[in-house]
Amino acid sequence: MPSEKATNSANLGEIPVEMGVTMSEKSSIRVFSPATVANVSCGFDVLGFALERPGDEIVLKRAEEPGIRITRITGDGGCLPKEPEQNAAGAALQAMVRSMGYSGGLELEIHKKMPVQSGLGSSAASAAGAVFAANRLLGCPFASADLVPFAMEGERAACGTAHADNVAPALLGGFVIVRSRFPLDVVPIGAPPSLICTVFSPEIQISTAHSRRILRQRIDLQEAVEQWGNLAALIAALLREDYDLLSRSLQDRIVEPIRARLIPGFVQAKKAAVEAGALGAGISGSGPSVFALSTTLQTARAVGRALVRSFERYQVRGTVYVSKINTRGPAILGRGVS
Amino acid sequence: MPSEKATNSANLGEIPVEMGVTMSEKSSIRVFSPATVANVSCGFDVLGFALERPGDEIVLKRAEEPGIRITRITGDGGCLPKEPEQNAAGAALQAMVRSMGYSGGLELEIHKKMPVQSGLGSSAASAAGAVFAANRLLGCPFASADLVPFAMEGERAACGTAHADNVAPALLGGFVIVRSRFPLDVVPIGAPPSLICTVFSPEIQISTAHSRRILRQRIDLQEAVEQWGNLAALIAALLREDYDLLSRSLQDRIVEPIRARLIPGFVQAKKAAVEAGALGAGISGSGPSVFALSTTLQTARAVGRALVRSFERYQVRGTVYVSKINTRGPAILGRGVS
Repeated sequence: MPSEKATNSANLGEIPVEMGVTMSEKSSIRVFSPATVANVSCGFDVLGFALERPGDEIVLKRAEEPGIRITRITGDGGCLPKEPEQNAAGAALQAMVRSMGYSGGLELEIHKKMPVQSGLGSSAASAAGAVFAANRLLGCPFASADLVPFAMEGERAACGTAHADNVAPALLGGFVIVRSRFPLDVVPIGAPPSLICTVFSPEIQISTAHSRRILRQRIDLQEAVEQWGNLAALIAALLREDYDLLSRSLQDRIVEPIRARLIPGFVQAKKAAVEAGALGAGISGSGPSVFALSTTLQTARAVGRALVRSFERYQVRGTVYVSKINTRGPAILGRGVS
Repeated sequence: MPSEKATNSANLGEIPVEMGVTMSEKSSIRVFSPATVANVSCGFDVLGFALERPGDEIVLKRAEEPGIRITRITGDGGCLPKEPEQNAAGAALQAMVRSMGYSGGLELEIHKKMPVQSGLGSSAASAAGAVFAANRLLGCPFASADLVPFAMEGERAACGTAHADNVAPALLGGFVIVRSRFPLDVVPIGAPPSLICTVFSPEIQISTAHSRRILRQRIDLQEAVEQWGNLAALIAALLREDYDLLSRSLQDRIVEPIRARLIPGFVQAKKAAVEAGALGAGISGSGPSVFALSTTLQTARAVGRALVRSFERYQVRGTVYVSKINTRGPAILGRGVS
């Protein structure tokens, strides 16, 4: 992102940033923050990737009054809390400014432009967008990877657990391995250039908490071995751009069979996606969204149509997104100075 | 291996090979077949790599009398069976010639130049060596990867289960992922160029069967997630030559804590290896051998000395091997024509 960095430095050159001091200058930034697909079949809780679309728009403004305020939320149907400590973006921002000792004022607008509670990392997109925006607004005190723990605090506020498998790819782009949460160790591995993701986001809701609760807490060693064999191969496939191996590796015998029960018509839709040419398909995050990976835009679109048709038979309607893998994380949409 | 292939073609040019026909010409081949380290901490049952040393020597000769005969075994202390169907090399060879419809005679010598039942893939080395030798002797009807299932039959004869995590790296070299055994899908991923392996092979014996029996057959999902997070990162580390990440990823919370009990002083020896500069250390295969990985020969030797000293305190003596990662599999040591 050399051009973004250049823009950033140029703007900051006009507005000297002093940490821990209330700024008299007002400035604002508008960013896009991407939806993410976590788990990716065999990578339950340790793998995710970012999309070019959909995603959230976050507007962050310096304010004279100290503290963080969420001034506007759109596109959420009124379901998201405006109290910063209960809101993913607000809580992430609070964690960040606290660690900086920043005592200035920040006003946050969250424009949800993606489905909420759909398994596409909606809270992660907001949290990642907020800390990315603040980092740019406040002179980039943090490297992108160092923002991940703050965004994880947003996840904790939104769903009770500080997961990293959505916020890390949302912030870093591409596929990201979460090797460990304690201590945090995330490993960005980019993305094969031809990969295109189709997402079908059904108009049904399942809660992340419920979707986690139904999982078995103990599994067969033999199943685990199959799972980590597939995951090892999937990582090799991603790094070597081996699409055949990627296709063979996109298997999940542990989590998908259980969560599939929450999504009417999932098994048939997955079959339809593969028949339409997808390398593989699975449940995005804790669902109900379904993702499929293809190597051409044409196939990815055909897969989208196949998913719609297949789910229709089960009276499940939804929205299709076709997107490249986002390899840069959030993006600056605009800046303002007043 | 272009030079080996050239030699091979030249010899075969003089002795036309006719499948399924008893050959009147006699010819022989002597090969080296490498020891292997399976599991590699977090990669239980799905990952292994090959060593430059130690390894077995296999001599294979065409014979006038049809069928496979094991004419000589040395270095095994008399413990290995000479009946082909009970011997790893013999059984592997039988599986191979059967699939070819080859009805000629083959005489096999096995010279064990590595410890048996030590967790270094002794049976795999013999099985891989035998099928590699036969393939070269009979005009290379198979690609190296296609020899893996035959060598697995050798593993079945030796230990009851047709594992691939030793025979696949023994045949293909480097690190190999066993994505799936049914259907067989092995993924060679090479090796980072600076990696050096130190092996300490203690003079104690533990049976593979016992070492498998003591494992828990059910594990916590959370432990499995940690394990596959480490394995995903280890694969990325190997492919990207990221030695720091490799070091952080060499962890096994599932198998090692249980098998460590069979190796007196293991925990302390592992600590000593890391203190001496190893990236990490673990149990090789089902043990009792211990492997450690380093990035320089000097460190790898220091690690060897540290392992010896540490195990001495527990009255455990053994042999140290320091070896590069073998990235080519078996090697031809010589050929004879009579």
